[in-house]
Amino acid sequence: MTKPELPLHFAIVTSFVDMNIVAGVGAGTVLLARNPANYESIVEEIKSSGGTALGISTDVSNPESVTKAFSEIQKDQAFANKKLAAAIYNVGGKFIRKPFLELSLEDYEAGYEATGKGFFLFAQKVLPLLLESVEKSEHPPTLVITGATASLRGGANMSSFASGKFALRATGQSLAREFGPKGVHVVHAIIDGVIDIPRTKEWMVGAGPDAKINSDAIADSYWYLHTQPRSHFTQELDVRPYVEKF
Amino acid sequence: MTKPELPLHFAIVTSFVDMNIVAGVGAGTVLLARNPANYESIVEEIKSSGGTALGISTDVSNPESVTKAFSEIQKDQAFANKKLAAAIYNVGGKFIRKPFLELSLEDYEAGYEATGKGFFLFAQKVLPLLLESVEKSEHPPTLVITGATASLRGGANMSSFASGKFALRATGQSLAREFGPKGVHVVHAIIDGVIDIPRTKEWMVGAGPDAKINSDAIADSYWYLHTQPRSHFTQELDVRPYVEKF
Amino acid sequence: MTKPELPLHFAIVTSFVDMNIVAGVGAGTVLLARNPANYESIVEEIKSSGGTALGISTDVSNPESVTKAFSEIQKDQAFANKKLAAAIYNVGGKFIRKPFLELSLEDYEAGYEATGKGFFLFAQKVLPLLLESVEKSEHPPTLVITGATASLRGGANMSSFASGKFALRATGQSLAREFGPKGVHVVHAIIDGVIDIPRTKEWMVGAGPDAKINSDAIADSYWYLHTQPRSHFTQELDVRPYVEKF
Amino acid sequence: MTKPELPLHFAIVTSFVDMNIVAGVGAGTVLLARNPANYESIVEEIKSSGGTALGISTDVSNPESVTKAFSEIQKDQAFANKKLAAAIYNVGGKFIRKPFLELSLEDYEAGYEATGKGFFLFAQKVLPLLLESVEKSEHPPTLVITGATASLRGGANMSSFASGKFALRATGQSLAREFGPKGVHVVHAIIDGVIDIPRTKEWMVGAGPDAKINSDAIADSYWYLHTQPRSHFTQELDVRPYVEKF
Repeated sequence: MTKPELPLHFAIVTSFVDMNIVAGVGAGTVLLARNPANYESIVEEIKSSGGTALGISTDVSNPESVTKAFSEIQKDQAFANKKLAAAIYNVGGKFIRKPFLELSLEDYEAGYEATGKGFFLFAQKVLPLLLESVEKSEHPPTLVITGATASLRGGANMSSFASGKFALRATGQSLAREFGPKGVHVVHAIIDGVIDIPRTKEWMVGAGPDAKINSDAIADSYWYLHTQPRSHFTQELDVRPYVEKF
Repeated sequence: MTKPELPLHFAIVTSFVDMNIVAGVGAGTVLLARNPANYESIVEEIKSSGGTALGISTDVSNPESVTKAFSEIQKDQAFANKKLAAAIYNVGGKFIRKPFLELSLEDYEAGYEATGKGFFLFAQKVLPLLLESVEKSEHPPTLVITGATASLRGGANMSSFASGKFALRATGQSLAREFGPKGVHVVHAIIDGVIDIPRTKEWMVGAGPDAKINSDAIADSYWYLHTQPRSHFTQELDVRPYVEKF
Repeated sequence: MTKPELPLHFAIVTSFVDMNIVAGVGAGTVLLARNPANYESIVEEIKSSGGTALGISTDVSNPESVTKAFSEIQKDQAFANKKLAAAIYNVGGKFIRKPFLELSLEDYEAGYEATGKGFFLFAQKVLPLLLESVEKSEHPPTLVITGATASLRGGANMSSFASGKFALRATGQSLAREFGPKGVHVVHAIIDGVIDIPRTKEWMVGAGPDAKINSDAIADSYWYLHTQPRSHFTQELDVRPYVEKF
Repeated sequence: MTKPELPLHFAIVTSFVDMNIVAGVGAGTVLLARNPANYESIVEEIKSSGGTALGISTDVSNPESVTKAFSEIQKDQAFANKKLAAAIYNVGGKFIRKPFLELSLEDYEAGYEATGKGFFLFAQKVLPLLLESVEKSEHPPTLVITGATASLRGGANMSSFASGKFALRATGQSLAREFGPKGVHVVHAIIDGVIDIPRTKEWMVGAGPDAKINSDAIADSYWYLHTQPRSHFTQELDVRPYVEKF
């Protein structure tokens, strides 16, 4: 898909290492992750292909860390005078699958830390920036949220993960209904399957080709969602490999 | 509905003051609420009609407070040797309806405090007791969870309340799938409307008769759900006044 | 569950032979089924225990047959001067599970015949009678619709059955929103599992006790739904055996 | 969005007159509609811009008419040796909004005629052609189904329209689960709002700009869905104007 140069920049919180397809174009990309190892190679890749990128080590569930990250972005020469086109919230959080009575309170809350609290802090920072871009961007400013199968149904031993993902979806729906009429596009994508990234290389071996979700395809879909005009906003879509049972 | 005397007791967390209809029968009722004013009159009423009741001031989102409450129950002569038949989680939590960008982190988390964390702490205490009752109770031991319209959809300015209610529903579904096969009935009731209690007396005046949900009817429905045999468990139902738009 | 004598009668379309638990009380029961073998023994049982029952061979997807059945009811001495309290639509229809490309048009439409068209014809006859009972019955007049797992999700090779069940649910929701405010209770029950009736005797042998839904329990739940006051109408609930995966 | 020339053709059933954006590229487009007026101008437009198009007057709920249309396609020089890339089912059917008791059986069935029976007949013809294209097309062969708000919820006076749209969704889900693993992408798009076409010109005047869905944007989204790789199939998405309440 051909993507025009944008006069705006992208902010991405990602563990999808191939999101550089989205990231590598436009006026620049900010990558937030707790562990610099999760963004360093992408930042390098974007820069070496002539793009602008900034990685910031951020703990999204820590208010001070989030505030510090956004203040760094605003001080950065490459981003200070640009508008935010899109913000993408990919934080998966700790995946804990345990019998309910073996969960500690900390285990249970781990789901919400990332996808309830963490998303709240992120959204509070990006929504004012997205609102500022409404009249100025080629496409409506967009907040994309990554959900999972557990966003739609709880499962045995899944209360930590599912409660966080449900909370994230609730917040996303609420924001879509509040900010949509103001011109900001809030969309929730349910990724139902394993994403094909280095970390999952050994998973599902033998399941045949294309049994894992291509992360380039996720980037393409997020790009497509960003380009939707305001007369035609998607609020929710699901994606899964063709062989996935659902 | 005629309800037989039970050799078991009920534990109730309630702001529905008329839940005494459920509470006033059987071998006794434990009422948990932060504010004693919310259970004192019911405890009195049950006792004066010959029943057994115990009220304990409890902050369900505080682990120590919950632990203390359940240890008090086990030390109480009236309950120490009895089995738990049913546990009902009615905690509504703080209802905050505000534009998203005006929410503090504390505001946002208020939803989850009550219906995410609070329910986790409560469920961890009651599920072991309910499991112990599986072979011994007339009806399958039951955990009833009270949800709301916001359990199913987010709304503008509703992210705090909806994210908590979504998290509660996710946890309830997860528990139903984990504990159902063990014989414990976990059910989520979506109460879609205003409950007719003293606090809501001035609400919806002029909406005509029966426009608010009769709290006795909620008690009847929870009783009915408790009496379902294990071949016929309901996981979710909604209730609303006949005039309610939905 | 103790059920008071009603001054009203029940009309039931049933293949659940044990629905006589609902049927055997009150001022009488009308049973509609294409094959008289499906109601004869129940009619006998009700009569021999002192109740009033009438069986009418009816093809619910045939307008003339439905018209004839309701005209017979109105001519019957036992029912002519009574009011209709509840109508229950249990028609399952032909269950066809076949690869899509092997379905004939007739196969595909078989789902809709029973649960689209058949329910339409039935509902057109019972709703005027239920409306007449609004001011006169002990409990709000009730139309209960029996759905299935396939009411909520399609499945491979299931398009005939699922499309009919989806259509039924859509119509039920539409009627609830139209007739609820007029005082008629329309409720959709999703029966997710095998019902324990003579025809399913050899099914799920070895799955352990209570793995099939007790049809008495269905009758109890429909009775409970009928007794809900208009301030507290359930629109949808699911039921399944405790061992059922969902 | 730039779209490459395809060695395959599109078959479209459309009342969206601007679907020519999808139609006007590739190796050709077949347009099916009962009324030739609904495709003639598009066929002209495609041809005059150098494309290949064929319009066939077809009543999708009539088996003979559908058979005749597909036999015409196979006899047409321009299409006979080509493979089918995508089939789009846009048939809306008669929209009847009436009190339930005023509906004739014909009124009620009108919903299902178009979206139950009509889609069945269409899908039976296109799926074998799409299966043949699995190994041969640039993108996975795609069947896109157009749904509406009424695909997800019934409404007062809406049983005809909603029952048909629910049936369509059920069939779409069933086909996705059956044909997805074979490499055919079946997707259901919920169009929640008024589409901006000549027929709706006078609707929602005064609602402001972009309050109606741009039909070009629908074409773009269907194109995007068609280009999804098989590792990343969307089954369902919704779209609506930014000002639409939902």
